[in-house]
Amino acid sequence: MSRVDGRANDQLRKLEIVPGFLSHPAGSVLISAGGTRVICAASLEDKVPSWMKNQKVSGGWATSEYGMLPASTHDRMKREASNGKQGGRTVEIQRLIGRSLRAVVDLEKLDGYTLHLDCDVIDADGGTRCASISGAAVAAALALNTPENREKFGPDAFRELVAAVSVGIVNGEAVLDLNYAEDSNAEVDMNVIMTESMELIEIQGTAEGAPFSRKQLNELVDLAEVGLKQIFAEQRAILAANGIN
Amino acid sequence: MSRVDGRANDQLRKLEIVPGFLSHPAGSVLISAGGTRVICAASLEDKVPSWMKNQKVSGGWATSEYGMLPASTHDRMKREASNGKQGGRTVEIQRLIGRSLRAVVDLEKLDGYTLHLDCDVIDADGGTRCASISGAAVAAALALNTPENREKFGPDAFRELVAAVSVGIVNGEAVLDLNYAEDSNAEVDMNVIMTESMELIEIQGTAEGAPFSRKQLNELVDLAEVGLKQIFAEQRAILAANGIN
Amino acid sequence: MSRVDGRANDQLRKLEIVPGFLSHPAGSVLISAGGTRVICAASLEDKVPSWMKNQKVSGGWATSEYGMLPASTHDRMKREASNGKQGGRTVEIQRLIGRSLRAVVDLEKLDGYTLHLDCDVIDADGGTRCASISGAAVAAALALNTPENREKFGPDAFRELVAAVSVGIVNGEAVLDLNYAEDSNAEVDMNVIMTESMELIEIQGTAEGAPFSRKQLNELVDLAEVGLKQIFAEQRAILAANGIN
Amino acid sequence: MSRVDGRANDQLRKLEIVPGFLSHPAGSVLISAGGTRVICAASLEDKVPSWMKNQKVSGGWATSEYGMLPASTHDRMKREASNGKQGGRTVEIQRLIGRSLRAVVDLEKLDGYTLHLDCDVIDADGGTRCASISGAAVAAALALNTPENREKFGPDAFRELVAAVSVGIVNGEAVLDLNYAEDSNAEVDMNVIMTESMELIEIQGTAEGAPFSRKQLNELVDLAEVGLKQIFAEQRAILAANGIN
Amino acid sequence: MSRVDGRANDQLRKLEIVPGFLSHPAGSVLISAGGTRVICAASLEDKVPSWMKNQKVSGGWATSEYGMLPASTHDRMKREASNGKQGGRTVEIQRLIGRSLRAVVDLEKLDGYTLHLDCDVIDADGGTRCASISGAAVAAALALNTPENREKFGPDAFRELVAAVSVGIVNGEAVLDLNYAEDSNAEVDMNVIMTESMELIEIQGTAEGAPFSRKQLNELVDLAEVGLKQIFAEQRAILAANGIN
Amino acid sequence: MSRVDGRANDQLRKLEIVPGFLSHPAGSVLISAGGTRVICAASLEDKVPSWMKNQKVSGGWATSEYGMLPASTHDRMKREASNGKQGGRTVEIQRLIGRSLRAVVDLEKLDGYTLHLDCDVIDADGGTRCASISGAAVAAALALNTPENREKFGPDAFRELVAAVSVGIVNGEAVLDLNYAEDSNAEVDMNVIMTESMELIEIQGTAEGAPFSRKQLNELVDLAEVGLKQIFAEQRAILAANGIN
Repeated sequence: MSRVDGRANDQLRKLEIVPGFLSHPAGSVLISAGGTRVICAASLEDKVPSWMKNQKVSGGWATSEYGMLPASTHDRMKREASNGKQGGRTVEIQRLIGRSLRAVVDLEKLDGYTLHLDCDVIDADGGTRCASISGAAVAAALALNTPENREKFGPDAFRELVAAVSVGIVNGEAVLDLNYAEDSNAEVDMNVIMTESMELIEIQGTAEGAPFSRKQLNELVDLAEVGLKQIFAEQRAILAANGIN
Repeated sequence: MSRVDGRANDQLRKLEIVPGFLSHPAGSVLISAGGTRVICAASLEDKVPSWMKNQKVSGGWATSEYGMLPASTHDRMKREASNGKQGGRTVEIQRLIGRSLRAVVDLEKLDGYTLHLDCDVIDADGGTRCASISGAAVAAALALNTPENREKFGPDAFRELVAAVSVGIVNGEAVLDLNYAEDSNAEVDMNVIMTESMELIEIQGTAEGAPFSRKQLNELVDLAEVGLKQIFAEQRAILAANGIN
Repeated sequence: MSRVDGRANDQLRKLEIVPGFLSHPAGSVLISAGGTRVICAASLEDKVPSWMKNQKVSGGWATSEYGMLPASTHDRMKREASNGKQGGRTVEIQRLIGRSLRAVVDLEKLDGYTLHLDCDVIDADGGTRCASISGAAVAAALALNTPENREKFGPDAFRELVAAVSVGIVNGEAVLDLNYAEDSNAEVDMNVIMTESMELIEIQGTAEGAPFSRKQLNELVDLAEVGLKQIFAEQRAILAANGIN
Repeated sequence: MSRVDGRANDQLRKLEIVPGFLSHPAGSVLISAGGTRVICAASLEDKVPSWMKNQKVSGGWATSEYGMLPASTHDRMKREASNGKQGGRTVEIQRLIGRSLRAVVDLEKLDGYTLHLDCDVIDADGGTRCASISGAAVAAALALNTPENREKFGPDAFRELVAAVSVGIVNGEAVLDLNYAEDSNAEVDMNVIMTESMELIEIQGTAEGAPFSRKQLNELVDLAEVGLKQIFAEQRAILAANGIN
Repeated sequence: MSRVDGRANDQLRKLEIVPGFLSHPAGSVLISAGGTRVICAASLEDKVPSWMKNQKVSGGWATSEYGMLPASTHDRMKREASNGKQGGRTVEIQRLIGRSLRAVVDLEKLDGYTLHLDCDVIDADGGTRCASISGAAVAAALALNTPENREKFGPDAFRELVAAVSVGIVNGEAVLDLNYAEDSNAEVDMNVIMTESMELIEIQGTAEGAPFSRKQLNELVDLAEVGLKQIFAEQRAILAANGIN
Repeated sequence: MSRVDGRANDQLRKLEIVPGFLSHPAGSVLISAGGTRVICAASLEDKVPSWMKNQKVSGGWATSEYGMLPASTHDRMKREASNGKQGGRTVEIQRLIGRSLRAVVDLEKLDGYTLHLDCDVIDADGGTRCASISGAAVAAALALNTPENREKFGPDAFRELVAAVSVGIVNGEAVLDLNYAEDSNAEVDMNVIMTESMELIEIQGTAEGAPFSRKQLNELVDLAEVGLKQIFAEQRAILAANGIN
């Protein structure tokens, strides 16, 4: 059975990462995965959240906020800022991005600083949270490797790349990097987040239609590894072109 | 190395489920897992969310809300109702409970109705979201099997049990059903949610400290299966004592 | 004319107070008055509200928050935390509980501390605010008489018991301790709050249907005194069993 | 012992009621009680609250909102509209005003309509809730006795006058109609609300400092009756001057 | 063509300014412009906004809040405090009032203080923002010229009068000081704000129906100058009567 | 005296409009004016705001929402969606964009539809509201001239182009199209919004430092006309390239 856009089951969508997309933040990219496009920005602020001060936690912090432009979806969605609150899906996604990035940033070295990762979706076609993580990783690497920030935080504040990809079971078959049409019909939907050394940071799998077996779990993680290796290669190429090893 | 409370690595905490804990809702339990206690209530309301009407989705709905009494934690936490919003963790948890229960309830049979699952933690000692899911499953089974509701929705509106358990890596070892002290120090934290036929509904694993390997992923899911079988036995015993097969 | 549940006009509902109901707070009870059940917790926090600091008010503070589990009522009510605000009735009740408890706690001795009284209704059958006050009084007495807190605040920080009871005019007759069915049909509804020395802390009487006379006011307060004496006896018994005189 | 402003213990402050103070609402007054001034407006809207429709309650409704101009107090208070919420005291007061007015308006005759009573304090010197009730009663009487509304709702939609006065114990003596300075130092603070036939609508007494006795309760209500008779006379005079008996 | 209320095109509505309308604030007026009435209060607070402290901006600040009584409009409008937010129109207006007053107050001399200008509309018949500015200017002048404040801030903290007037094109003709009926039908609506030395502080012109020409722009500003001269004369008379030159 | 970026006083910044920047909305552009970049999207929704239905206003509606990515400014600004409200400046700007576009869209022809104009700033360097208006005009023209929408609303639903430009007095000289550095130091700041037939839609001029004269007002509007003619030429070129006359 062929996929809606003709890809092989283990084929990623076209991936593109444009570094330095914004003028002001220390690091930024526009990441495209097929029809999904996300602006990811990494900004440093010289203070830490109040809970860290209250609880006397040392070091720095990294956190993320996620948003979608109202016109990023097929039917215009309501603007969360005018609704007066972020929806549950938004909160869930930005917490996931934050956890993923904290796993690869050396928070002790960011002492007294917060790294803000803003991921704003401008075109949505499935996989926006995964694109956000993969893009935010590059933005963070760029931000923590400016000459000024290498001076301030040391050369290893960004420890390792992290990337995310979605896998799922659609029409009974395990497929990689679902677009919106596939995602809407998936029986199982899973996001796999790994470090460049191919260890797991986070795995989230959900049966949307029918429960899934241990065997399917393994197949899906295998498939994710195929995709993640290609994403790491793309991220690494961008960093190399910007003089970061 | 021994666990803080002397349990074996594959040993659940003491599990107790008190059915009919509240007067008004169609189904309710007080579930205890060690020092964690959660009141789970299942209530039916004769309308569906407005998005279902707007999008002309047929059938019924099941959804969950989660809360913690301010005094349920070691240091009193702020009441979300007076803060004016639910925190990100709360939103994330109640969405998880909702998805888990929708996997085992026949929404078509609930046509025009919403099943509300309210999980309120009165004592917190780790694993509150898992206890909420395992307790909500029993509350839902009780609610959908009252004579009145079997009449209204048919005998199979509640299709199958679901249960959840946490597993994790603490001090380098895979352990089952973490309490708060273990959870705070876990390197990896994972929640595994399965149906009684031992298929996966949801898996969420997070590296809190260091990334984890595919091998560890498998060990953790194996361990979860050990615990889940015992939880299903306990749930099944409560249902049987209430005349539900 | 007989009451809906067969009680005499001057008869309390069955009253039960379970001390130490929660694990974490310094003092807690589950109080039952007939079908009404409320969890009351007393927690000490080592800071005072910002208005006290701004206005340079010395001493400590005592305050209350009140809530109802969504499934505590006959038809499930909406969760205030997800509504984003506490309703007017909630605000009114928690202010009443706070005033009542401040009347019997020595705020000067709580210097720099806030005593939080959380009253969460798990089953509602009328009289929840009165049960909350009578239960919070025991929780506060327990909290301020732990060895640690007697050391910190002195032996007399909790000065005296306080209790509350509802009285009303139903079908033209003065009755004590109304349940929900009576409350819904009462012509007059009154809450009387007294100290153990039988002096008034607060009285709130409202004509729901028809205005009432000075004579009826006196009858109702007489009736309240009958009930309050029994509540004080029950509270006193619990304290005695916990070694508090 | 003499009062701070030289009044006798049973003496009201200077009371003045200016009818027709606003251009648009059906009824309005500016009521002054000493240094306290409140604009009270009564407006009719041709719909009822959604809860009445949902619960299929027949008739109409009367409700109140209360506010204070930021500059109405000695030190400017924050504007509730820009704070984003009404404080607890505001909510408590507007619920009291609403209950008091519903006691004297024939809601059945207001079928399908809501009577809004807006009480906005422009100068605050104690007793603002009582002045609001006494003023709102006149505003409501004016609104329901315009030729148009007598036609629409019948001549008896406004059944009877209601008035409110504060009494309290200051320096050990029972006094009538406390100003702000007295209110701040009162040992007991009580609001008494009666109909013109001298029956009770609501009584709210609070021990701010020390508990009070049954004897003091009676003294205070006696004193309130003295004041209320004078307020009814003033309200009646205004209505008479506007052709309302 | 004649105007709806018979005025000449260049004729102001009856203007009246009552100084000292409120008891507590340092300066206050009730300003009436035809059927529009606004209470304007100027209060000094001994702190500056947090953004000034964060950005280390020296001097003091002046800011405004604007509100309408619910019963100030023909059909009662909803109370913003109970809606939980100020509407866009309110925010826009209060920012305009704030900017206008900051132009004539010497913020350096207010070092460490904030001047709050509260403008509350009690009767609305068009031109409420202009009346608010003209009234707030007098209130601010009164507040900054009390003996105490002249001592504290120096004699010239209030530098110059400011006034505002609306002009517009109605039925093709340029008219001054539009009332509500005219405003609702205006093709162009413009607010002109000037200092007493007849220089511009702010100009805001909006084509409500059809665009307007440069020639019309000039005609409208000419007309505004006619009205503003009369408003300055009235403001000046009030200040003179209060001993302020 | 030369400008900070070397431009002549009457010289626009480099202007670029990229049509079709987003995948989903009917019309969209990325507009750049020097260092300022804004994504403008025009989406049609088949319903009108509830106030139109309540007030039985016929036709359709056009409205705008404005936002800034947190990383669009020199120092990262807070995300309004997580703050829980839109700031006053945001509200003011989006109301201005909405009014400007309603002036050139034939609302009668949009019967039953709302045209949403979303303007999201990705890089901010002054003049974001003007760029938003000029960009939204092109997005709206594109949206209302798709074959489907020309069919639905007729060929003239978009009546005429509108554009906006800022002018101001900086260091005593009138300059066109201020960047952020100039804007921060401007004595007078003015936004001029015109139709392609060079008639005024809106003019908003504010004295930030010192008041300004009638002569300066005229100079500034003259200068704005110079810039607007060039903006109309650029807009027109984009429309022509997309087959729209």
